Amino acid sequence: MGLLDDTIREILPVNRSLELQARSRLDSLTKPKGSLGDLEDVAVRYCLARGTLLPDLGRKIIFTFAGDHGVVAEGVSAYPGEVTRQMVKNMLAGGAAVNVLARHAGAEVCVVDIGVAGFLEDAEGLIVRKIRPGTANMAEGPAMTEEEARQAVEVGINLARDAANQGATLIGTGEMGIGNTSSSSALLAALLPCGIGEVTDRGTGIEGKTLAHKIAVIERSLEVNRVLFTDPLHTLAAVGGLEIAGICGLILGAASKKIPIVVDGFISSAGALVACRLCLHAAEYLFFSHLSAEGGHKIFFEHFHEKPLLNLGMRLGEGTGAALAMFVIEAAMKVYGEMATFASAGVSHKGG
Amino acid sequence: MGLLDDTIREILPVNRSLELQARSRLDSLTKPKGSLGDLEDVAVRYCLARGTLLPDLGRKIIFTFAGDHGVVAEGVSAYPGEVTRQMVKNMLAGGAAVNVLARHAGAEVCVVDIGVAGFLEDAEGLIVRKIRPGTANMAEGPAMTEEEARQAVEVGINLARDAANQGATLIGTGEMGIGNTSSSSALLAALLPCGIGEVTDRGTGIEGKTLAHKIAVIERSLEVNRVLFTDPLHTLAAVGGLEIAGICGLILGAASKKIPIVVDGFISSAGALVACRLCLHAAEYLFFSHLSAEGGHKIFFEHFHEKPLLNLGMRLGEGTGAALAMFVIEAAMKVYGEMATFASAGVSHKGG
Repeated sequence: MGLLDDTIREILPVNRSLELQARSRLDSLTKPKGSLGDLEDVAVRYCLARGTLLPDLGRKIIFTFAGDHGVVAEGVSAYPGEVTRQMVKNMLAGGAAVNVLARHAGAEVCVVDIGVAGFLEDAEGLIVRKIRPGTANMAEGPAMTEEEARQAVEVGINLARDAANQGATLIGTGEMGIGNTSSSSALLAALLPCGIGEVTDRGTGIEGKTLAHKIAVIERSLEVNRVLFTDPLHTLAAVGGLEIAGICGLILGAASKKIPIVVDGFISSAGALVACRLCLHAAEYLFFSHLSAEGGHKIFFEHFHEKPLLNLGMRLGEGTGAALAMFVIEAAMKVYGEMATFASAGVSHKGG
Repeated sequence: MGLLDDTIREILPVNRSLELQARSRLDSLTKPKGSLGDLEDVAVRYCLARGTLLPDLGRKIIFTFAGDHGVVAEGVSAYPGEVTRQMVKNMLAGGAAVNVLARHAGAEVCVVDIGVAGFLEDAEGLIVRKIRPGTANMAEGPAMTEEEARQAVEVGINLARDAANQGATLIGTGEMGIGNTSSSSALLAALLPCGIGEVTDRGTGIEGKTLAHKIAVIERSLEVNRVLFTDPLHTLAAVGGLEIAGICGLILGAASKKIPIVVDGFISSAGALVACRLCLHAAEYLFFSHLSAEGGHKIFFEHFHEKPLLNLGMRLGEGTGAALAMFVIEAAMKVYGEMATFASAGVSHKGG
């Protein structure tokens, strides 16, 4: 058995018996019962994921996986493929949106080349784990082999485990990859399953005619590869992306170490879907950061029965939503850990 | 003319000609156009309020106004009136939810006794601006005189002006006052206007029978005082609260100094409504932090044509929503100010 299978076996269902005690602590705090709404649910979920009623708050790390997509040759994106490489450099220089928002939230950003096409010279700070220089064109055949997909997933697993060992207590997902909304839509259509038109939208900003073309390309990709959709890993290999595989692995690795994971946006949700299909219990360790303006994300949540924390009309990816949501999750844990109780503050109880 | 009238005259409509330039800057940043959604709108609104394309980010201060309500004698709340005083002490000791969330967001909390019933001994750090020790019972007559309401509004104006002079660049509203959802519902019903049942909900957590009673008490308050509803200030005096008047003044004072204000929840929105009825242009300086779980807040937004930034099912007040939203607003301004441009980062433009 390899790392992936071992990791899946190590992911345990959370201990739900802690929930009552966590709720009881929240109800002892100086506020009307339940009045902090979602923050209270977040605090409970975080405690359950960590497996303790007194979790510490350590490092927050966002892993932004970068990979290219052969399907870009079909003209599905508003930007040329080399933008992946350019944006990786921008992230390493601290100028991308994810850098700004992560700094603001007190989180670190680790940029991982898991499959960028071409050479990244002078890329100081880049974590190089390149499985292959971009995927093949999924409209003509599988994006990668099952073995490559497994290797990419295991890159994510190892990064999460190392982060856990180095004091991370909250891990965020992120990605950069021109063409990756096409892969994500294909994965959702194959795995949920649902209609391609429902889960395909404008990505980086394509217009009407290009959108129709994008849908047609995804339809063709599913037709060409359908025989390979025998399990989640093979489906990921056929129509996924290297960065999506990395995100999938990051989630599995973090869950196996009882570290909560913040899922960024639409593309990260596709990675989360694969992770949860590989291991149902991984879902118990996830926070969904926000509802993307990319239309397919709403469909994802309808099938997945989860509620995102934020809804700010964002559709940028990179980990930007994860960074904002980390602030909310930490807010919930500080409320849980730092507020005075009715008893300690001498405040009269309801009706008391 | 007094301070209130002078302040209203000093509130200018924002200079909308700046919007195009602010949007143009946002479009030059390394992200697909519009892909940061609400954050981009927040950045534009902030620039317009400050009246500059290069606003600095200075101190963030939340003013939590505390006041008691005579209408509590009617049994409209789940908590006894003395909880206002107890919670003020809790806030001064740093143990309330607003303290925790403000610390997390890097904001200061100033607690203002604008009308707490009874004496607050050992209240170090309290800003004492008590107009009267709680309002009269609005179910039997006006909650306060028009002169008292004006004085309470002017307390808020002066605090905002002092904060602006001391480097505040973002001001938040907050309140503590057992019984104040009743006053807020009465104000909304009188000013929007709308049905009392539509804007009255469970407050700190009352149950079905008490809720029906609360609605009946608010109905009686509106009947008893209706003859006084000649203008926004008189309406505020008749069925409002001292802390709501303080919030109204804080908004007017901040707007007159071109400092954006973050409106907390349901009760703060009632204060904002009075402020905007006194001066239409005050609305251009406001950010609404979140949609409260208190049912009437949704009705408020339907009438007010504004969209809150967050929707986390919170209904605590104090300034807790304002604290969280301050993080989002500052995130927007950091994106606007710190991200690399396509040109500076050497990233290819769309289709380029």
